[in-house]
Amino acid sequence: MMALAKGAGAIAGIGQTEFSKDSGRSELQLASEAVRAALDDAGLAPADVDGLVTMTHDTNDEHALIRSVGIEHVRWTSRTPFGGGGSAALVEHAAAAVASGAADVVVVFRAFNERSGARFGQPTGRAVTPGLSWHLPYGLDTPAKMYALWYQRYMHQFGLTNEDFGRYTVVARKHAATNPNAWFYKRPITIDDHQNSRWIVEPILRLLDCCQESDGGVALVVTSAARAKDLRRPLVTIDGATQGSVINSDILFNYYDHDLARFPQAEYVARQLWQSTGLGPGDIDAAMIYENFSPVVFYQLEAFGFCGHGEAKDFIVDGHIELGGRLPVNTHGGLLGEAYIHGVNNIIEGVRQIRGSAANQVPDARHVLCAVGHSAVVLGSGD
Amino acid sequence: MMALAKGAGAIAGIGQTEFSKDSGRSELQLASEAVRAALDDAGLAPADVDGLVTMTHDTNDEHALIRSVGIEHVRWTSRTPFGGGGSAALVEHAAAAVASGAADVVVVFRAFNERSGARFGQPTGRAVTPGLSWHLPYGLDTPAKMYALWYQRYMHQFGLTNEDFGRYTVVARKHAATNPNAWFYKRPITIDDHQNSRWIVEPILRLLDCCQESDGGVALVVTSAARAKDLRRPLVTIDGATQGSVINSDILFNYYDHDLARFPQAEYVARQLWQSTGLGPGDIDAAMIYENFSPVVFYQLEAFGFCGHGEAKDFIVDGHIELGGRLPVNTHGGLLGEAYIHGVNNIIEGVRQIRGSAANQVPDARHVLCAVGHSAVVLGSGD
Repeated sequence: MMALAKGAGAIAGIGQTEFSKDSGRSELQLASEAVRAALDDAGLAPADVDGLVTMTHDTNDEHALIRSVGIEHVRWTSRTPFGGGGSAALVEHAAAAVASGAADVVVVFRAFNERSGARFGQPTGRAVTPGLSWHLPYGLDTPAKMYALWYQRYMHQFGLTNEDFGRYTVVARKHAATNPNAWFYKRPITIDDHQNSRWIVEPILRLLDCCQESDGGVALVVTSAARAKDLRRPLVTIDGATQGSVINSDILFNYYDHDLARFPQAEYVARQLWQSTGLGPGDIDAAMIYENFSPVVFYQLEAFGFCGHGEAKDFIVDGHIELGGRLPVNTHGGLLGEAYIHGVNNIIEGVRQIRGSAANQVPDARHVLCAVGHSAVVLGSGD
Repeated sequence: MMALAKGAGAIAGIGQTEFSKDSGRSELQLASEAVRAALDDAGLAPADVDGLVTMTHDTNDEHALIRSVGIEHVRWTSRTPFGGGGSAALVEHAAAAVASGAADVVVVFRAFNERSGARFGQPTGRAVTPGLSWHLPYGLDTPAKMYALWYQRYMHQFGLTNEDFGRYTVVARKHAATNPNAWFYKRPITIDDHQNSRWIVEPILRLLDCCQESDGGVALVVTSAARAKDLRRPLVTIDGATQGSVINSDILFNYYDHDLARFPQAEYVARQLWQSTGLGPGDIDAAMIYENFSPVVFYQLEAFGFCGHGEAKDFIVDGHIELGGRLPVNTHGGLLGEAYIHGVNNIIEGVRQIRGSAANQVPDARHVLCAVGHSAVVLGSGD
């Protein structure tokens, strides 16, 4: 089986707006600002861009963005399905476009007013995916409710309580507290704060297990490693990138699989990545792990082999995911602590870690995993 | 500038349902039937598939399709924006996934009940793309009305009447009349029939200038040329594939550009394709050209250089686009004569022409262009 060649692409620029609860401007404006910032960061001009990648969920029309930013010609456009599950796949799309010759400079963007505009976390009356039509009649009308049933099986099987999930949140908030980009900058919490926050879905998720619904835009510039080397920033290579939908999967939560305490999509993605990169969990210096809700970090730590099945609780309690630990996780604060920009801000933090420019820098970070279950990417330093 | 390598991918299988006005079954069922038929055609099994590509417009969830067809693992998913404008880009996506190593066997699918379900051609009260919010208040609430203004400028500049557009429709219906898959099989028309059909947008478009809103599903299997050679069907290589959005473009119709009698997106796509393939208009043995409405064929014949600017009228009257002509166009009857499966049925006809298995076969077809303005692909025989 072939795979994306190691270093087939590189991330040459990153850009973002501020992350807020009320941006006060349009999603097109947010996307445009992020894209211009990423191009400036790379030292490239709008006219250098010939590819655009975003999510199917993004409301921005590529043509409007092209006009707004001043891009002249685009010969690659693509969109990833599955919402946040496709956040790492965005990088795969861009790398595949570059590696295949379909485009030279591909900009990945994601921008929304997810807090001041349409909030994903609010109850929905309509089935936005086919699977939802099965759940809605039973009152599963928010992501928190839908995901909680999946997590409840995990709690049951391995004897966890909500407090165990809170141990992750405390770490995420600790990292966010020293990241000036984070919504929760300078606002760390204790486990008591977590346990005193209100129930969202009792006895599974409390308020502080939930990501920060946010307004903001982010962008990445992907080009060949050869071209990136000549640009102004330290080289950040795309050493591996893949997606994983398996026969019983759905979007993150998974009611079809026979073992609800596992994350088969992420296990498949992990196998693909370790095989294609020749790396293993022990080679990863830091991991940015998507968490719309805290428990999904537990599933992914296990699926990617950073600890055994059912052992994430102890792995976290033992301090391995903190700065200075064996595998610092979500050094920017994650989607709980920094902002929920649909997971794409995780990729930006991964780039910063490889560049050595993160607010909470992991010393000599050479390989960073950015994972979201359904898709993942390994960023490298070109070594 | 790099480009997708010639023969980087190949189309190893094609499949479709019947094309109708009322399929009587779900869009998921249509997609599943088409995908299974394409896999059977290629001699591959669902377990061989590891990539899926469709349009953002497709309502089918990849996970539902995976379960329905029995696909086990998918490591590439992508969607093309711009509706029918992305129909050739579907093939580019699949070829890029294969060429980059992201996947080995990618299935492209598009299925809808576009006649018995939600009809694109009906008036809309909401802006489905951002640009529409500018047009709707002025009553441009159907594609026919929106596109007609674009065409009217072309008519004015080159002195065409609606009868000139009808000359294309007569050819499309002639080709459809001998294609058993076509909705208008055995139902050719004369120019008088065209001129007696009712106005849709006077004096630009009559009923017989409009595509057939249709129910149906189609699918293509894309893999490497090396693998395709070992499969059961004659080799059909993807010799070139690209997209083209330019700074003033919109989805096909174009109110931003300073010259509304041109199709700058298609001109850009043509330049890319001729440059990357080393071919030119004279090397193309047949062309499948997207036509939601007959006039867009005129723009594309000119943009791809098959005739000069403003000369499509004469090119058509002189018989060049008919079977036996210099450039047989839409040998299956096109979207006006066969069915409107969002342009993807055009790719299937292109494959049949290269295989030598088309109902209206062009002798020794070695290079076929499938174009939709915003994107295009050149299929080859591997010579």
